[in-house]
Amino acid sequence: MNRVYLDHNATTPLRPEARAAMVAAMDVAGNPSSVHAEGRAAKALVERARAQVAAALGADGADVIFTSGATEAAALACAGRGLASAAVEHDAVAAWGSGTLSVRADGVVEVFEPAATALQLANSETGVVQELPAGLAVTDATQGFGKLPFAFNWSGAEMALVSAHKLGGPKGIGALVIRRGTDLVAQLKGGGQEMGRRAGTENVIGIAGFGAAAEAAARDLADGRWGEIEKLRNILENGLEASAKSIIFVGKDSRRLPNTSCFAVPGWKGETQVMQMDLAGFAISAGSACSSGKVRASRVLGAMGYDETVAASAIRVSLGLETREEDVQRFVDAWLKQESKYRARAA
Amino acid sequence: MNRVYLDHNATTPLRPEARAAMVAAMDVAGNPSSVHAEGRAAKALVERARAQVAAALGADGADVIFTSGATEAAALACAGRGLASAAVEHDAVAAWGSGTLSVRADGVVEVFEPAATALQLANSETGVVQELPAGLAVTDATQGFGKLPFAFNWSGAEMALVSAHKLGGPKGIGALVIRRGTDLVAQLKGGGQEMGRRAGTENVIGIAGFGAAAEAAARDLADGRWGEIEKLRNILENGLEASAKSIIFVGKDSRRLPNTSCFAVPGWKGETQVMQMDLAGFAISAGSACSSGKVRASRVLGAMGYDETVAASAIRVSLGLETREEDVQRFVDAWLKQESKYRARAA
Repeated sequence: MNRVYLDHNATTPLRPEARAAMVAAMDVAGNPSSVHAEGRAAKALVERARAQVAAALGADGADVIFTSGATEAAALACAGRGLASAAVEHDAVAAWGSGTLSVRADGVVEVFEPAATALQLANSETGVVQELPAGLAVTDATQGFGKLPFAFNWSGAEMALVSAHKLGGPKGIGALVIRRGTDLVAQLKGGGQEMGRRAGTENVIGIAGFGAAAEAAARDLADGRWGEIEKLRNILENGLEASAKSIIFVGKDSRRLPNTSCFAVPGWKGETQVMQMDLAGFAISAGSACSSGKVRASRVLGAMGYDETVAASAIRVSLGLETREEDVQRFVDAWLKQESKYRARAA
Repeated sequence: MNRVYLDHNATTPLRPEARAAMVAAMDVAGNPSSVHAEGRAAKALVERARAQVAAALGADGADVIFTSGATEAAALACAGRGLASAAVEHDAVAAWGSGTLSVRADGVVEVFEPAATALQLANSETGVVQELPAGLAVTDATQGFGKLPFAFNWSGAEMALVSAHKLGGPKGIGALVIRRGTDLVAQLKGGGQEMGRRAGTENVIGIAGFGAAAEAAARDLADGRWGEIEKLRNILENGLEASAKSIIFVGKDSRRLPNTSCFAVPGWKGETQVMQMDLAGFAISAGSACSSGKVRASRVLGAMGYDETVAASAIRVSLGLETREEDVQRFVDAWLKQESKYRARAA
């Protein structure tokens, strides 16, 4: 039987539009910095993609800086600034933030000084969406971009970071969007690409894929495709809840990403569930992918006040636009089967 | 008539092997950090490519850190270390180096303290190859890798940086190779990828392309393919020299990359030549691609003692493995035609 991929918050399959754009870009041999025809053709690909990403983000092309991903964008936006942040931020932002802001039980972060704060748009593990206060220094829009309406120019944020591979683009390409007039010191220096804000020969093929994916993602969002996925997510949660009486859903009463469900059966370790479900043909995760190699309880759930047992027992199921109701039903059946085995063992 | 691309030191066309590996990698949906089957498949692609790059570099896989290119690798290797360097280094290294080391008229750099020095393997503009002293802190092997025999483990260097797109791989992926035991502080922090030395979800498609390109490049080097290209480069230089009496070849008496020719007709601006040859169907460059948007004389030639007029008049022709003798002859004819027009105007 086909495997069912339910780990879209970790990374998404490549969209056909992105694949086509990347394959086409493979024939463009020039360096975007070269002034000859081959160079100008490569530059045109990059600038077309920049316009696509900017349009999808509600930003202006001139304000979009391509980076090797959201992690690099986070370092460019946050390093050395001593921003306040909460423990629910992704590791790539948490590495540079204070980690001191309070998180309510529903996952909402309490921000006091927006101009000195980094705050995510949506959490990768729980899907909880933050209300972004005006004048925010940095928002990590990686998980929200493409799944939620988000317009950078209307957000009031100074900078936002995004990644292609969360919305059907390739891994290894992302962007930092900055409000015009914001100071930014390049961390990668050299050739002066990206208007001197990020040196290095452009990842032309990846950028082309990002542009096409962003455009397609914006179209799908406008078409209400995530509303359909939200229904499937709710079918999944209702299916689990009907049979697994001790299940705890995290952030379920908050505004959440339409595709994400985070839940725990206290005592049944998340890592174990991931392995059991993998053997049963399902890809899910315990915590964010980046930290999933490490055996430790979710920092995000800890910040929301869950105890170590619950935090260590949580898994995340994240649907994608290609997820079908049949996939969800198969997951519910397979997970409940494992859950009853767990209860039998634990009894 | 088909255009002739003679700007391979700026960037190379994608090798068929790299294209095939990248297209295959597009079907691998997982995040290499995920523990499920999809994640493990992505991780396997990355590790296979790491082994390919390491083998081509004469290094061990565990010592290869994938980065978004040589510029990022240069920042990771050099930032904050106050290394000595000469003005012939690429901007990505020059940004962090002293720029104070003397350069001889033949392009050779005089190194006093290898352990505190960054020195390129070969120059992108002139092709001049440096003899790397034992115990060098950093070598920028970007232009040499794939064209010259180079074994990191035998070089005695502490770190070397390379880029995929100079040897037929995609743009936007490179590597830093480090001697085991060398201290290295990650600049991109977060998910802990690359053994904690470079965070960020891996550019799986680009990495797969890099691996395949590096393997193919090593095979072509071993097969003596660059010896054939060197003959074409010499045919080109002899053809130009026979008719253009005032031509100056830069670094011609030094050990050079087999594919590179740098020459000047004093007074005939390099930028003008690039545009004239572009219109005639040839892609060449004046200076390195990264800085080619900027109108300024080559820093590299200045360091070798050439005056401003010569430095501003230099162009670089860089051949690739797909260059044919007919391409070279067409270039010689077209360039000589422009050169005689220039002489007529200047007379």
